[in-house]
Amino acid sequence: MDEQILNRLTQDILGRIFIELEASARHVHITREQAQTLFGHDLTPERPLSQPGQFLAKERVTLQGPNGKFYNVAVLGPARKEAQVEISLSDGRVLGITPPIRQSGDIQNTPGAILVGEAGTVAIREGVIAAQRHLHLTPDSAARFGVQDKQIVRLQTYTARPLIFEDVIVRISSAFADRAHLDFDEANACGMQKGDLGRILP
Amino acid sequence: MDEQILNRLTQDILGRIFIELEASARHVHITREQAQTLFGHDLTPERPLSQPGQFLAKERVTLQGPNGKFYNVAVLGPARKEAQVEISLSDGRVLGITPPIRQSGDIQNTPGAILVGEAGTVAIREGVIAAQRHLHLTPDSAARFGVQDKQIVRLQTYTARPLIFEDVIVRISSAFADRAHLDFDEANACGMQKGDLGRILP
Repeated sequence: MDEQILNRLTQDILGRIFIELEASARHVHITREQAQTLFGHDLTPERPLSQPGQFLAKERVTLQGPNGKFYNVAVLGPARKEAQVEISLSDGRVLGITPPIRQSGDIQNTPGAILVGEAGTVAIREGVIAAQRHLHLTPDSAARFGVQDKQIVRLQTYTARPLIFEDVIVRISSAFADRAHLDFDEANACGMQKGDLGRILP
Repeated sequence: MDEQILNRLTQDILGRIFIELEASARHVHITREQAQTLFGHDLTPERPLSQPGQFLAKERVTLQGPNGKFYNVAVLGPARKEAQVEISLSDGRVLGITPPIRQSGDIQNTPGAILVGEAGTVAIREGVIAAQRHLHLTPDSAARFGVQDKQIVRLQTYTARPLIFEDVIVRISSAFADRAHLDFDEANACGMQKGDLGRILP
């Protein structure tokens, strides 16, 4: 068998048992109108992300809170119906914002922030969250792991500082690739390196 | 029973089952000679820490790495035989230093850093670590929990984002107070608030 086939086989077998861990750095999602205000044009894809159709934009923003700011913050596309800012609790301390732990999209009564782009500024009234750790699974993988959409599972990490995350929420969609998404606090707490794996505990 | 006795009883009962979690922010330990160089005098206690005899010093240092620095970093006393700098992996990213995960005191072949005080500067050639998460236990508590010195245990957290830390090392001394020590990455990953509790898993 050639190298490519062997690699594919290894991936397929590992994918039956493990889920790749991925750390999400602080980032923002914005609306098309906000992209116009911030940059004077729509978002431009720089590179695709692991989730099909999602991309890292070439455009960057400064993210401001009452106590501090971060420059050069990633903007993810495509544009959404509502802005959402995903930060870690550590980031929150720097900004002076206490983000609630929420699922993506669940932004009612969350804090706001200020976004500054090269062409303008947008103050969002709500949308700052720390994303609840979650699994993206395809329906096939979910069936194999025996889990349902929105089920809460435990995730064991095979990392330098191993731990078992509780309260990990499962999201299932045929538009997904199998990935466990952590924020940087969580990635550091388990000593995660790129490519590290995790396993759903029964 | 009066309030004080009730509180004491509650503490005693909780202490049979749980261990209080405590987050250690970045800090440095220095030698007496280094205190002289940095401040021109010995360390001055500002307030006692939870571990008997240990104190937060009034003196502060700037901690410098190749890529960044932190101002106003805590110095803990009393002075030690060797300098040691305890940072999180997040801190390491800012400084441009990759700290290995080590037990306190185990600093051979670890990175160095620069400390700046009001009276002078000290370059330490080694001593920068990310402290391995650990339990401080009295011999009585250790006996009750059925654990030995240097045993590796799992610690379940009763926190906003519950998880189970693996690779938690037990340290036992009659000079200790019962505490689980996490760094800020770990504290944020489990959503720890002051006073939160953990439990050793069998």
